[in-house]
Amino acid sequence: MGNLEKIDAAKLREETVAGNGLIDRRALLRGALLSAGIAAAGAGAVHADDSIGANAPEWMTTPGRTFSVYGTPAKWQENVQRVITVGPGRPGTGTSRTPLQLLEGMITPAGLHFERHHNGIPDIDPGKHELYIHGMVKRPLAFSLDALMRYPMESRIYFVECSGNSGGFVAPQPPQQTAGELNGLLSCSEWTGVKLSILLAEAGVTKEAKWVIAEGADAAAMSRSVPLEKCMDDAMVALYQNGEAIRPEQGFPMRLLLPGYEGNINVKWLRRLNVTDAPVDARDETSHYTELMPGGKARQYMLPLDAKSVIVKPSFGMTMKGPGLYEISGLAWSGAGRISKVEVSADSGQTWALAALNEPILSKAVTRFRLPWQWDGRPSVLMSRATDETGEVQPTRANWLAQFAPGQFYHFNAIQSWGIGADGTVKNVYV
Amino acid sequence: MGNLEKIDAAKLREETVAGNGLIDRRALLRGALLSAGIAAAGAGAVHADDSIGANAPEWMTTPGRTFSVYGTPAKWQENVQRVITVGPGRPGTGTSRTPLQLLEGMITPAGLHFERHHNGIPDIDPGKHELYIHGMVKRPLAFSLDALMRYPMESRIYFVECSGNSGGFVAPQPPQQTAGELNGLLSCSEWTGVKLSILLAEAGVTKEAKWVIAEGADAAAMSRSVPLEKCMDDAMVALYQNGEAIRPEQGFPMRLLLPGYEGNINVKWLRRLNVTDAPVDARDETSHYTELMPGGKARQYMLPLDAKSVIVKPSFGMTMKGPGLYEISGLAWSGAGRISKVEVSADSGQTWALAALNEPILSKAVTRFRLPWQWDGRPSVLMSRATDETGEVQPTRANWLAQFAPGQFYHFNAIQSWGIGADGTVKNVYV
Repeated sequence: MGNLEKIDAAKLREETVAGNGLIDRRALLRGALLSAGIAAAGAGAVHADDSIGANAPEWMTTPGRTFSVYGTPAKWQENVQRVITVGPGRPGTGTSRTPLQLLEGMITPAGLHFERHHNGIPDIDPGKHELYIHGMVKRPLAFSLDALMRYPMESRIYFVECSGNSGGFVAPQPPQQTAGELNGLLSCSEWTGVKLSILLAEAGVTKEAKWVIAEGADAAAMSRSVPLEKCMDDAMVALYQNGEAIRPEQGFPMRLLLPGYEGNINVKWLRRLNVTDAPVDARDETSHYTELMPGGKARQYMLPLDAKSVIVKPSFGMTMKGPGLYEISGLAWSGAGRISKVEVSADSGQTWALAALNEPILSKAVTRFRLPWQWDGRPSVLMSRATDETGEVQPTRANWLAQFAPGQFYHFNAIQSWGIGADGTVKNVYV
Repeated sequence: MGNLEKIDAAKLREETVAGNGLIDRRALLRGALLSAGIAAAGAGAVHADDSIGANAPEWMTTPGRTFSVYGTPAKWQENVQRVITVGPGRPGTGTSRTPLQLLEGMITPAGLHFERHHNGIPDIDPGKHELYIHGMVKRPLAFSLDALMRYPMESRIYFVECSGNSGGFVAPQPPQQTAGELNGLLSCSEWTGVKLSILLAEAGVTKEAKWVIAEGADAAAMSRSVPLEKCMDDAMVALYQNGEAIRPEQGFPMRLLLPGYEGNINVKWLRRLNVTDAPVDARDETSHYTELMPGGKARQYMLPLDAKSVIVKPSFGMTMKGPGLYEISGLAWSGAGRISKVEVSADSGQTWALAALNEPILSKAVTRFRLPWQWDGRPSVLMSRATDETGEVQPTRANWLAQFAPGQFYHFNAIQSWGIGADGTVKNVYV
């Protein structure tokens, strides 16, 4: 193994593209890492002899269990859970967060999609639920679920992110929490439903109409004002999530989906679409979901989410197992469209390298990025910086904070940093 | 509504692109259906008055239920199940099928991914499981799950299809079963794992090597011979399925994924990769998973799956609710790459129209197709015909049968037909 290690080190030096051991992303694509010898570098497999695999494990000696009508995760995965935060005495008001650091790829399993409820999850009888379109329309309409199922559908992979996601980063000291606890009000699913433009055209929107007030059938009657332009663009009445009927906590039997807009306005348990000429200034767009500006005024209806990224591997709660080759991996997304690049730094932002973006790169969906990293065992700070197809780049935390009054935390999208200690521990740090 | 209906009929006639009411797929894309008035055509919404939505349903008057760490489908969805077929006295040997006709989009929820087990599902302790690479290699290696997690990963959306899928169509009389019962040994997931080429390069494959014998850690010790070329191309050791750890019935903690190859060779619970210079002629590539030819010889190692499609909406078990506008929707896939087109016929194959393909169209993944159909209420036969990027087209059932000896049913990929009765019932028919 001595020789092998020497060859590896030389190869890896050739592939270095930014400070402190970042390796060219194309090394992944062209297979240059093949000869880098992760095992040889002490990280991977164990060399074995000819008796390899000779002894069958116990689970090969007795028949396994039978089939099931609906599968569940392995019992060994019990720690892969949503993290619930609920106020005292208010079991239906709060959040549960996706454990991003325990997941991979782009799709969030429906059972782990984040939740944000304002008065619990209603148990709606789908046979009795109706969607109403009324107000400034020529023909007020009532749609049963059966009726909606007759309409042409589309399927699209979109993220949903709560505007309060990552709000913990405005705290003066960096919160020591997992990537999911900090950023897990973000999930990504394949949604299928009926384009809202089709339903609105059927109702016949009048010339004066400019907004649509969406109301949910929950006990909060969640109401939000949506620009008509968005409703006629890519808005969807979603009926399916990752192939099956939308889950109760995501709006069963139907939710409004406004791709790239803050989570709260994607009204769950959708019941009414009231077409109007002005926004309604509902409780949840006045008392909540506004941005307090430095001059003391609040900004309303800042609906699209900004370009953002987060490294989930490595992240808080994990421990690096000594120097060697690692994969840095994370998620990037933007409410404005596709991610065009993600840069990663291993030296506190002094130098940056381009991460590999996992295909397909879809508009308003999460994009997984990856970059090989040769960690030399010394303290390091990892950062990621996303740019979307409109050219928008994530700001630094200082620049993000300077835009708003103290305490404002909605739409946090600044660059995040993980500090790696010499002992391999990972902490959230402000740079 | 009288005027509206007249306008619709005229508009729809303009958009007709094939016999018996098939509407141009671009009518969906350019929104021409907006004015077609599905509601007006009697299929959709109910016209309502100003009191619309005045009475809040009961679930808006009391707080809903609280959060959960791992969500489940709505209780109203209990009929959305895998369909299990198990032989008497052999609880671990058989299949469960994905209910394709009840699902939408491209992704199959992990809980509904089809199962095919030969001796049950092993309960593997991931901390004790190892993957061995041995045989014609310079360095035999043993990989723990922890070790594999250090390697660079990739995420890809791929279908898996059992080579016995749709075998029921070789019966002399058309089986009256649902689209899922007939074709549900097919599912599609986002898989994340380590490229097998990286692991094989690390072990150092010798010049004589041509095959890799993959063995599972189940009580059947499922073994299959894989061409080395495939292992060095797009093969993956998959650790995650739809974002979370691979489910037990899909191979927890790891499975071999050979995109586009017949399901059985995607060895679950992957334990050994024995690099050799010849295939091993294992039980499941001799007694099963071979094709009996007309001359009496059996063909082995026909591994890639062919271009195929199936209409799931409408399909057996559904009832059309009178004449009007419907969406025909289904799935198409090919083991050779991307689907390039799907044609649909509503007149027993006399005329065909191009269906709209849902983006993104990915190689060796399922592609959802859709086409609007104005059903006039008369008996009709619906068919779909997929072509992949290599130019391969689905054969007719007669042409497919003529290739093989009677009784051969693996790799069935012929054109399927649904007969719509004047009463709206849907039956499987041979044309």
